Amino acid sequence: MKIAVIGAGRMGAALGRLWAKAGHAVVLCDVRPIEELEALAREIGHGTRAAHAQEAVADSDVILLAVPWASIRDALARCGSLAGKVVIDVINPHKSDFSDLEIGFTTSASEEIAKLAPGAKVCKALNTLPSPVFNLPECKVSGMKVSGFYCGDDEQAKQIVAQLVSDAGFDPVDCGPLSSARYLEAAGMLLIRIVVALKASPELALTLVRQDKPCC
Amino acid sequence: MKIAVIGAGRMGAALGRLWAKAGHAVVLCDVRPIEELEALAREIGHGTRAAHAQEAVADSDVILLAVPWASIRDALARCGSLAGKVVIDVINPHKSDFSDLEIGFTTSASEEIAKLAPGAKVCKALNTLPSPVFNLPECKVSGMKVSGFYCGDDEQAKQIVAQLVSDAGFDPVDCGPLSSARYLEAAGMLLIRIVVALKASPELALTLVRQDKPCC
Repeated sequence: MKIAVIGAGRMGAALGRLWAKAGHAVVLCDVRPIEELEALAREIGHGTRAAHAQEAVADSDVILLAVPWASIRDALARCGSLAGKVVIDVINPHKSDFSDLEIGFTTSASEEIAKLAPGAKVCKALNTLPSPVFNLPECKVSGMKVSGFYCGDDEQAKQIVAQLVSDAGFDPVDCGPLSSARYLEAAGMLLIRIVVALKASPELALTLVRQDKPCC
Repeated sequence: MKIAVIGAGRMGAALGRLWAKAGHAVVLCDVRPIEELEALAREIGHGTRAAHAQEAVADSDVILLAVPWASIRDALARCGSLAGKVVIDVINPHKSDFSDLEIGFTTSASEEIAKLAPGAKVCKALNTLPSPVFNLPECKVSGMKVSGFYCGDDEQAKQIVAQLVSDAGFDPVDCGPLSSARYLEAAGMLLIRIVVALKASPELALTLVRQDKPCC
């Protein structure tokens, strides 16, 4: 797949790296100077490039949105039209002090993005995973392959997202329609609360364990 | 501990059974006829009794609230004062059709209960676990001890809850203050969405995996 990474911070760069390694054509986009991005792209290798958002989006099948929630409108404006694109939203819309979510219950970051980007096939994915997990060997936590939760309203887009979740090293878990993003974003916030309460390393994950399917 | 189980349905009866087996003195309370409850108490054994809520509460240290969200006000009215009691709320405040939560984001079932029961030391616990998990051998899912998430604002009450979570067979995971119930209840709803999306058996659980702590 041709994947445009919008926001090449810790999360975006880590996912871009995993997908590039898995053989996808990755383009990094960010508000940082293009020279910095080009250096990061060279370091990632596997043909990874840097480009301006609008050019990268026009040339890609899949768009990863990995910017802070506060920057989402600016980021979407830089992208231009996302109509027909598979859009993977990994954003947790928490307050800047990480204390709580900014939005939720009757909506979610993903649902707001779907409203702002008409025609885009928006899916939520991988938002419950703290970015340090993406840097663990094979993304395994304590030796265990962990869940990559995703949801969306477009079945074809969801199949692509499930494959990309798997390519990144996670066990894809379908959470239903896009409105499940409300619960996935809350689960992301729960994990922040747990890290704070346990004073734990953020190398942790919530994973689904099923009696009818062996886990480890 | 002396534990009053308010609402001896699938969840309440299963937890009462686990705690009775672990040596706690359990009293079952429900709106069902007392003869039915007494039969259930005899079947559970280990000294389990049945009683009316107000009598059971007055005589207990810990109160388990395991009624449907729609019945919470009636249940609290039957209990009388909960001041000074450790109250464990396992309730998921979902709509009757399981489609979404009734409340959330700026409040939670636990926070509403705390408002309705002045002086009670309310903790949320174990709400992300579907009741069939309580009936698995040692409560293990796919051979794995799974997380028993809990939160609350009273540190002493939380220690008691952590011990009871452990006594029931789960790995206690502190999720911080009572307001984390907003995210725990959303995680409970997420699990409902997953069961629907995957057409999965409800013998499943969300569990925390930590790189700095082996899991299985």
